[in-house]
Amino acid sequence: MDKERVLKGLKAIVGEKGVLHRLEDVIVYEQDAFVMRALPDFVVFPTSTKDVQGIVRFARSEGLPIVARGAGTSVSGGAIPVTGGIIVSFSRMNHVLEVDAENRCAVVEPGVINLDITRAVSPYGYFYAPDPSSQMVCTIGGNVAENAGGIHGVAYGVTTNHILGLEVVLADGEVVELGGKSPDSLGYDLVGLVVGSEGTLGIVTKITVKLTRRRESVATMVIVFKTLVDASRTVAEIVARGVLPSSMELMDEMAVEAVEKAIHYGFPPDAGAVLLVELEGLTEAIDRPYEMVKDIAERNRAREIRTAATEEERQHLWKGRKGVFAAVSIIAPNQFTQDGCVPRPKLPEVLEKIGAIAERYSLAIANVAHAGDGNLHPLIMFDPREPGELEKVIEAGAEILRLCVEVGGTITGEHGIGIEKNEYMSWLFSAHDIEAMKAIKSIFDPEGMLNPGKIFVSELSPNEIRTESIGATAGKSRRGSGMWV
Amino acid sequence: MDKERVLKGLKAIVGEKGVLHRLEDVIVYEQDAFVMRALPDFVVFPTSTKDVQGIVRFARSEGLPIVARGAGTSVSGGAIPVTGGIIVSFSRMNHVLEVDAENRCAVVEPGVINLDITRAVSPYGYFYAPDPSSQMVCTIGGNVAENAGGIHGVAYGVTTNHILGLEVVLADGEVVELGGKSPDSLGYDLVGLVVGSEGTLGIVTKITVKLTRRRESVATMVIVFKTLVDASRTVAEIVARGVLPSSMELMDEMAVEAVEKAIHYGFPPDAGAVLLVELEGLTEAIDRPYEMVKDIAERNRAREIRTAATEEERQHLWKGRKGVFAAVSIIAPNQFTQDGCVPRPKLPEVLEKIGAIAERYSLAIANVAHAGDGNLHPLIMFDPREPGELEKVIEAGAEILRLCVEVGGTITGEHGIGIEKNEYMSWLFSAHDIEAMKAIKSIFDPEGMLNPGKIFVSELSPNEIRTESIGATAGKSRRGSGMWV
Repeated sequence: MDKERVLKGLKAIVGEKGVLHRLEDVIVYEQDAFVMRALPDFVVFPTSTKDVQGIVRFARSEGLPIVARGAGTSVSGGAIPVTGGIIVSFSRMNHVLEVDAENRCAVVEPGVINLDITRAVSPYGYFYAPDPSSQMVCTIGGNVAENAGGIHGVAYGVTTNHILGLEVVLADGEVVELGGKSPDSLGYDLVGLVVGSEGTLGIVTKITVKLTRRRESVATMVIVFKTLVDASRTVAEIVARGVLPSSMELMDEMAVEAVEKAIHYGFPPDAGAVLLVELEGLTEAIDRPYEMVKDIAERNRAREIRTAATEEERQHLWKGRKGVFAAVSIIAPNQFTQDGCVPRPKLPEVLEKIGAIAERYSLAIANVAHAGDGNLHPLIMFDPREPGELEKVIEAGAEILRLCVEVGGTITGEHGIGIEKNEYMSWLFSAHDIEAMKAIKSIFDPEGMLNPGKIFVSELSPNEIRTESIGATAGKSRRGSGMWV
Repeated sequence: MDKERVLKGLKAIVGEKGVLHRLEDVIVYEQDAFVMRALPDFVVFPTSTKDVQGIVRFARSEGLPIVARGAGTSVSGGAIPVTGGIIVSFSRMNHVLEVDAENRCAVVEPGVINLDITRAVSPYGYFYAPDPSSQMVCTIGGNVAENAGGIHGVAYGVTTNHILGLEVVLADGEVVELGGKSPDSLGYDLVGLVVGSEGTLGIVTKITVKLTRRRESVATMVIVFKTLVDASRTVAEIVARGVLPSSMELMDEMAVEAVEKAIHYGFPPDAGAVLLVELEGLTEAIDRPYEMVKDIAERNRAREIRTAATEEERQHLWKGRKGVFAAVSIIAPNQFTQDGCVPRPKLPEVLEKIGAIAERYSLAIANVAHAGDGNLHPLIMFDPREPGELEKVIEAGAEILRLCVEVGGTITGEHGIGIEKNEYMSWLFSAHDIEAMKAIKSIFDPEGMLNPGKIFVSELSPNEIRTESIGATAGKSRRGSGMWV
């Protein structure tokens, strides 16, 4: 690659200040929230679809790979430039372009932060429903790429259920409009295909999101149990009784301990599990499900039930749950966030078996779970400076996912495949299925320039691949951003 | 084609009684609820995935096209065998295989009637949400093929929002399992791609559907207005006030008249429009939205409001809406059901312009609309025995769709493209978009044997095509089944 010529070419498209190329600048972009890293050659900051189109066409003429990047919160390595090349950062395409309250939708640029959509539409009485724990920093473009979930997924579904239309720059530089404001899509559902495709089929430059009417009232309950079994049974009974909480989050003993150690939240010392249940609806409609949840929890030996009466108290109750990641960061040098899904009734059994895996590998694993969805997030704590430690963590993580598959679950709930799980795709898909997916990839991106190395087991030659684990440099971890689920 | 050899081959797969081939038998399958017809050579009745696999492999070796058929209620010609060949009827694969209440899903065969899913899961407190008006006869397989909507679509979405997994026989006879019971799909969303692909990508043999918890209470209101403008304003205000009815159906004057003439329902003689609003939720949560709707309707000069207090009364109120299609069938020799979508605020303008189109073409057009979704169903009445009449109807229908596109809408809300609208795809998609879709088709079905002639403008040579309009034989219409929306 003629670096000078490429630099000149990129500057001609996005301007002098729209390109980073020096090592000290691009090194910031070698990582996301996963445990691998790879250095990009350039980072560019488009401000329009036309810029993106120009970048894609130019990259193609230069034979350079392109990786789109939102906020870099991907925990499966989605934004890591495996073979180097150009990172397209959407931090300057961060505008809410239109709020169309009458048609219950908004049109936004990919760099808009998830929570900022809700802020923009809140005056109209709406919110954008999918809420990853990283929603204060993660972008809607990244959410679309990974089909992100959220703590309210049990009630509202994941990203794909809330995307109506996309503007996409294809690998040949063509701009296509997929879907739109209407509820049904015509012909093949290409919007659905692009959502969750991790930047491998095209670069999304505009997104039409569905808006959800804000519920009138919220009741938030934190329920402390002595044992995980009691908490799990409570979850099962809440579901069986037909109560549909908008959120139902489970923390195991180690997660509770971490929070206690790090932020002294105030959980009782004998807490073996904590359940956070949120109910939403019309004011009159909250009381009965609230009483039902309370009754179910009490019959399952709840040790303590805290309820929020004000928004302030509600935020406080959430602190315990939201503090887990920060807490684990404080008590361990690093963490590996796993993401698997199991049928809800299998939750207790699987959590118990994860405990056995932790013991066998001598690793500390704290569990938080979107229990209403059966979506697990084991947080494996480790020190990347210890030789061989990261390999052990990855192996234990794989074993947990294998366990999820064995009980009829799957290897990702909401974080995507990225470079983390491409080798595990064959556990769930036949060679035939994977060939069908690859054939789709080759239609959209025949030259394989869009986010190479993701989703599928890499066919790249070893000397093309730049990734290394974060433990590769001995000494202090260069890990940047925090981890989120 | 060596008919004897093919017959023998098919009988070897599905047995002596599993194949129809005589003209008097297969003629029943030349039509669905659209205005064209084409004769199949064979109709086969598989009872297992293995049968379907055998049929697909055999058809491929014989170079014969395959068209999957549910109940034949498609109003866009989805089940018509444009080039003849084999119709695979799913009427014997009609079993609910599993109700998994704990994971809120059911596994069913494609020939199961939509309403029978709800019947099967009802003891567990669940229902299957998408409810096309044809739900007493249409099959879940056909719903998946066309991504069917329904009268409760405004609250629950369309079919694609309720399908978790599919078993599909591909064109080469391979069986693939797409998706499953978990909320997120891995890799590319092939379930979403197959839903709505109108039988052109594979033959669905098993379906995992999401179940929805039955609401505790329902309030059903029929509101009579003197003018369409008043009814439309009521719709707009209900949406703007944040009330989310589970159903909001609009009938115009001609639809009301047809119902009065045919079944003497009892609408007042000066009714210019009727709105049917259904609210669902916890008992305590129904009262306030009910009062809001009542208040909004009254301020918009509602002439009369009827409310159901019992399930029996509710069924009676629905009769007026559900009777429209039968009513139109009684007062006109035939009807052409159009299906378009517009942004909700454009509804009054578009309905008025449809009136102008009706006048210009001297056609009677009754309108029913899923108003909450902006999904229109103009019913164009006509007599297929009149020479040139059907052509006029098709032209007027196209003009209505053109109008929908002009105001920012689209050419189908829930009925698919089929052979009716493939020529209109170019109004909404660039040549580039259509090429991308065709490329996907060619991956799944390189030889074009699955439901040829659908979705895309046909590249078949004229002598391959067997379709003719139902008016082609003078004299009495051979039209079989009724029309549904």
